[in-house]
Amino acid sequence: MMEDGQDAENGMGSYQEKPRTFPALRTKSTAPFFLRFIYNMDKRVYYLLTAFSLVAMFYVGVRTSSIIVFVFAVCTLSIFFATYLSSWVLAKDEGPPEMVQISDAIRDGAEGFFRTQYGAITNMAVVLAFGILGIYLFRRSTPQQEAAGIDKATSAFITVLSFLLGALCSGIAGYVGMWVSVRANVRVSSAARRSAREALLIAVRAGGFSALIVVGMTVLGVAVLYAVFYVYLNVDSPTGMKATELPLLLVGYGFGASFVALFAQLGGGIYTKAADVGADLVGKVEQGIPEDDPRNPAVIADLVGDNVGDCAARGADLFESIAAEIISAMILGGTMVKRCKLEDASGFILFPLVVHSFDLVVSAIGILSIKNAREVGTKYMEDPMAVLQRGYSVAVVLAVITFGASTRWLLYTEQAPTAWFHFALCGLVGIITAYLFVWISQYYTDYKYEPVRLVALASSTGHGTNIIAGVGLGLESTAMPVLVISVAIVSAYWLGRTSGLVDSKGAPVGGLFGTAIATMGMLSTAAYVLTMDMFGPIADNAGGIVEMSQQPESVRDITDVLDAVGNTTKATTKGFAIGSAALASFLLFSAYMDEVSSFTQISFTEVDIAIPEVFVGGLLGAMLIFVFSAWSCAAVGKTAQEVVNEVRRQFAERPGIMTYQDKPDYGRCVSIVAKASLREMIKPGALAVISPIIVGVVFRIVGVYTEQPLLGAKAVAGMLMFATVSGILMALFLNTAGGAWDNAKKFIESGALGGKGSEAHKAAVTGDTVGDPFKDTAGPSLHVLIKMLSTITLVMAPLFLES
Amino acid sequence: MMEDGQDAENGMGSYQEKPRTFPALRTKSTAPFFLRFIYNMDKRVYYLLTAFSLVAMFYVGVRTSSIIVFVFAVCTLSIFFATYLSSWVLAKDEGPPEMVQISDAIRDGAEGFFRTQYGAITNMAVVLAFGILGIYLFRRSTPQQEAAGIDKATSAFITVLSFLLGALCSGIAGYVGMWVSVRANVRVSSAARRSAREALLIAVRAGGFSALIVVGMTVLGVAVLYAVFYVYLNVDSPTGMKATELPLLLVGYGFGASFVALFAQLGGGIYTKAADVGADLVGKVEQGIPEDDPRNPAVIADLVGDNVGDCAARGADLFESIAAEIISAMILGGTMVKRCKLEDASGFILFPLVVHSFDLVVSAIGILSIKNAREVGTKYMEDPMAVLQRGYSVAVVLAVITFGASTRWLLYTEQAPTAWFHFALCGLVGIITAYLFVWISQYYTDYKYEPVRLVALASSTGHGTNIIAGVGLGLESTAMPVLVISVAIVSAYWLGRTSGLVDSKGAPVGGLFGTAIATMGMLSTAAYVLTMDMFGPIADNAGGIVEMSQQPESVRDITDVLDAVGNTTKATTKGFAIGSAALASFLLFSAYMDEVSSFTQISFTEVDIAIPEVFVGGLLGAMLIFVFSAWSCAAVGKTAQEVVNEVRRQFAERPGIMTYQDKPDYGRCVSIVAKASLREMIKPGALAVISPIIVGVVFRIVGVYTEQPLLGAKAVAGMLMFATVSGILMALFLNTAGGAWDNAKKFIESGALGGKGSEAHKAAVTGDTVGDPFKDTAGPSLHVLIKMLSTITLVMAPLFLES
Repeated sequence: MMEDGQDAENGMGSYQEKPRTFPALRTKSTAPFFLRFIYNMDKRVYYLLTAFSLVAMFYVGVRTSSIIVFVFAVCTLSIFFATYLSSWVLAKDEGPPEMVQISDAIRDGAEGFFRTQYGAITNMAVVLAFGILGIYLFRRSTPQQEAAGIDKATSAFITVLSFLLGALCSGIAGYVGMWVSVRANVRVSSAARRSAREALLIAVRAGGFSALIVVGMTVLGVAVLYAVFYVYLNVDSPTGMKATELPLLLVGYGFGASFVALFAQLGGGIYTKAADVGADLVGKVEQGIPEDDPRNPAVIADLVGDNVGDCAARGADLFESIAAEIISAMILGGTMVKRCKLEDASGFILFPLVVHSFDLVVSAIGILSIKNAREVGTKYMEDPMAVLQRGYSVAVVLAVITFGASTRWLLYTEQAPTAWFHFALCGLVGIITAYLFVWISQYYTDYKYEPVRLVALASSTGHGTNIIAGVGLGLESTAMPVLVISVAIVSAYWLGRTSGLVDSKGAPVGGLFGTAIATMGMLSTAAYVLTMDMFGPIADNAGGIVEMSQQPESVRDITDVLDAVGNTTKATTKGFAIGSAALASFLLFSAYMDEVSSFTQISFTEVDIAIPEVFVGGLLGAMLIFVFSAWSCAAVGKTAQEVVNEVRRQFAERPGIMTYQDKPDYGRCVSIVAKASLREMIKPGALAVISPIIVGVVFRIVGVYTEQPLLGAKAVAGMLMFATVSGILMALFLNTAGGAWDNAKKFIESGALGGKGSEAHKAAVTGDTVGDPFKDTAGPSLHVLIKMLSTITLVMAPLFLES
Repeated sequence: MMEDGQDAENGMGSYQEKPRTFPALRTKSTAPFFLRFIYNMDKRVYYLLTAFSLVAMFYVGVRTSSIIVFVFAVCTLSIFFATYLSSWVLAKDEGPPEMVQISDAIRDGAEGFFRTQYGAITNMAVVLAFGILGIYLFRRSTPQQEAAGIDKATSAFITVLSFLLGALCSGIAGYVGMWVSVRANVRVSSAARRSAREALLIAVRAGGFSALIVVGMTVLGVAVLYAVFYVYLNVDSPTGMKATELPLLLVGYGFGASFVALFAQLGGGIYTKAADVGADLVGKVEQGIPEDDPRNPAVIADLVGDNVGDCAARGADLFESIAAEIISAMILGGTMVKRCKLEDASGFILFPLVVHSFDLVVSAIGILSIKNAREVGTKYMEDPMAVLQRGYSVAVVLAVITFGASTRWLLYTEQAPTAWFHFALCGLVGIITAYLFVWISQYYTDYKYEPVRLVALASSTGHGTNIIAGVGLGLESTAMPVLVISVAIVSAYWLGRTSGLVDSKGAPVGGLFGTAIATMGMLSTAAYVLTMDMFGPIADNAGGIVEMSQQPESVRDITDVLDAVGNTTKATTKGFAIGSAALASFLLFSAYMDEVSSFTQISFTEVDIAIPEVFVGGLLGAMLIFVFSAWSCAAVGKTAQEVVNEVRRQFAERPGIMTYQDKPDYGRCVSIVAKASLREMIKPGALAVISPIIVGVVFRIVGVYTEQPLLGAKAVAGMLMFATVSGILMALFLNTAGGAWDNAKKFIESGALGGKGSEAHKAAVTGDTVGDPFKDTAGPSLHVLIKMLSTITLVMAPLFLES
């Protein structure tokens, strides 16, 4: 150690030439309590508990519906399959000790963040749970509920329980995503020393593990809640409530999921960009040490950021996307069945659960198909993007087939014999929409195409023109996705309307359900898409570890290629996420109107924007999006400043760090950036949670004075719609502009327009800096915000109604 | 000349030290044909024509209503007063020959632009007029019109005539604004050599001249049209139509005004920023000659840009704001009278015309009050902003009084004796809203306050952080204006609703009219606000002329102070413009629904966003705003490139320019930038005009197939509302971010954070470059776009309805 230290004192240049001993990076074991509890448990107790849970679950399932049993079986098998994937990944070697050390530090950091983040989110969730309990204890029950003997207390506890379960599952989903990525990264690095294929495979399977767990848990959570309520409330028995009413009780689950996801995405997004900027500002700019140097106390935080900002947050994001979409589709299915007076409701209500069960199966096959490809050609390195897309094609083709089969199985009804086929076509619309969204975001963010090249060209005339070009590109890029989603909504609605399902008066009722089916179609390969998304940060981290442990050039080349592919998949997944958010929100909006009607017994089928208060609600909703975006961008700036201060302090107080004699306090840095980003996430998060409540309550009061019934609910509906529309456009703008700036920089770094170090490159770096909080903080948070607004209004609806 | 040329060859340095002879800047007389015609007319013919017009006008006025006579009288007097102001300004000296030369060149450039721009806009307007004619010849007349004996052809010609008159007046409004500013600028420069007060006064009175002409012409145009139709169509006679139907015939006027204003603002905005950037890129950066150097062929284009981009365009903008607001308020007044079955409709219908007549009076007094202040203290130079604001206070106080008096005069009805007082309060709400808007935009764009200072501070850490801070500020700045406008809409609506005016069933009907009154209140000092706005570019140009003619430091100091004040007034007027646009659009939206109901005889009182097609219309509307902003920003970039090429060509082909031996071809540069900016304005302009038509027609067809009546009209309504809301927010964002970046740069230039030349300054310059197209091209164009969308849907409504 002393010798190394002396060497280092001779100057920084020597660092590059020969590897040195790394300081002990690991601080202490930081597994959360509940995981340590599980680790320490006797294996037999664990098996016993699992077996008992399974038996109980299936017992309840059998008493509910055979469809539920099918869903339980598929989800259970998928989770077992995911466990197989994880043990396959974990069986891989972790490489040389220097890799392990770095990986351990990243793991500690990520877990440190989670401790802090979970503390904060848990506190907020508990407070909110009490709030919901209070609201529901003073709400009115629906006549249907009263008829079924559900009193206020039961209804309140059901909602709170759903909320807490949703929050917990969302948290676990995020944790699982991160858990595997901090373990897979080092194994990918190690494998990259041997074979590009093996590295790719490890990253894909690790991503697949968390994707299957996330999707499986979402479906299982909703299914278990449904089945438990079904049995507990004696649904469909002569004295009990109707199955068509049941999905409304699940809204708490969706809200819990989106509440946690919002803060996970905000916190993670602020974390990753603040750590990135902070580490660079002091390390690279002030001290002149290379990027990813182990002596920089913030470098681990930076690498941790990739995991918590991408893996964990996107896991929570898709978890709540799917949860929101399943629940809203179930509500709409129930409403439709009620209006059509169909005899067997279960097929329509449980359809979403089956679609996502098949999603698990086809995605698992897609993931496995990549293994086969590997066995065919091990010698030459195929484009990993092509490999991933081949897997995607497999999943999509299978999804089309299973989707068609599911519609025939569950949506066939003698009342309208061709309805199932119409709905199958709706699903196809959704699948095509997903494909187009992925393609459009690729077109606008990949430097193979014109738009990004124009941004790069604009960089050659300066910083200002680069920014104008990027902003212009981002704003313009909203056009095609909006056109696609418009066509999708209208055509799916039309297909549903003409399905032949009619109410007692003969009016067609299947329109909205058609849109719901299209949304399911869009999400019918969600697990595979999430796999591709998770792949990105794992490859990114693996690249970081390879850099830090100074592997040969050839190894870096491999991780660089994987990293580049990861950037593309990350960008395309964002398009997918916003597209599905757009559709899901439209469904949730209808579900909200259903719920309000159901509670007030006043027909609430229209939201008239010609009413000034609704228009004002809309103005406020659009404003919410603008201010939320502003605050989440500003939060990155403020948090980065705290990182800078801490790193400067460590360097100043412990000069030994620079000479490798002293160990930087990674944990403190991680904890500081985590605390700061969690504090900063409160302002935009609270804005998102509180605004709709305030608008609803204020206009409820205005409504009382101006004698307009339902005014609170209507103003909130206006807010919801305008926020959704503005949010979709703003998110598209932020994501695309950010991605385009990033890749314009990469295009110049690849040698175009003067390459690295040129004036054009400097301008492009400016664009990239601006794009960072756009695409990784504000943009993805908006996806979650849109859906959170829908679920919060669903749960808080009683507050907006005169009792 | 030779000597000068030789000196110049010795190097640029000498240029700064001693003044040299200017080349002859003037190219040729370029007054438009109709003006040359008027100039060449015998004075006696001119007086005779004027007298004849006045007599004819008053004859028609007397046959219509005493209120109309009052309006005619006030407007005529105001225009005479404006003529007095202009002759007062023109009587001032033009200063030394070098100033005159520069001024002549600017004048030629501005007129050159107008020739080109008017040619293009006229062609488009004529094509559109034929289109409208075609549509109206195939439309259905309303039963009321049929009863009054108005056949399709009459209705078609009335609409087309109104459209063309609106377009012509809008064009004249723009031309007048520019006409006086290119004459006043040199007089301000000359006066600045003597007294700051005198310079201020000339600029204010020149601004006042065009403001009074613009507002006077708007009011007079609507009043004349109204009176002519009234007499021609035998309104209120037993066989004729009712006065309450008449305002609907005026919508063409509003559309003509906004159509021309859109292209005027787009073309002017692109022109001014393209010339600015182009002149700087070649002159300052490549050739190293100072800013505003007469050898730069694009420098005149740059100075012209201030006139056409600010004076002319804002004139057209406010012209159509007021026109749209007057017409929509008249329609709403007519509807209300009809529903209340009031006996005398004229007061309610003509109220807006009276408000703006008083606007002319109080603004004229406000403008004159500045003269008195001058006589009190001529020795020490008071803050010009304080002087302008004192005049504003005078105008506002008088406006409150006259507004109250007008409501008592015209809106008193025995059916609801306190209604007039409620409406007076609505007017007060509008006046307060205007005040708050002005204050808020000042807070976010003036470097006396926190927000701009934070942007300046962010510049010290680099280009990227400067941009992030500016974007964050801009996005956040939408919050307060939205809250203010929300409170204004809801409270004015509530005041109107409780006014006591009820329909035959006893339901209150005054709500929307209350909002209309608030809008009028907001615009009740429009002429004074426009005066302050026109003041800005005149002072700016005067500063440029002083710089170019190398006046002593003390003269420059005076114009610098005036210029700085002009920047503030320009920024605040934008806030005012967007606030009134928000209110006016909400009114036009209601007028649109009225019109559709009136044509289809189907009640169209609601626009339900829960209908997928309406939601999709909304998505498309919001997208329109994003794409329009993208394209208008991109147009600046492309046009600037053409300027760069032309300037480079002139320097290369005629090296004598650099040595003062050869005269740069300003006219060619002006013509090129004008042609390029007019070409570039087509794409965003056409998008704005065509999108609502396409959406309406497509959904009309969808509606036929899905059996949804009015679907086209509803989808367009959805589009309109979402575009309005997104447009307001986007415009606020663009204007404020642009203004803040500009002033953050000025703050640093004033010596903060290292001052001129520091790294922070470079970063701030980047922000300013980005902000230029934001605040001077895209932002102001959005104001016009919002209203143009409303008026185009009003005029094109028959296209969206099944006939």
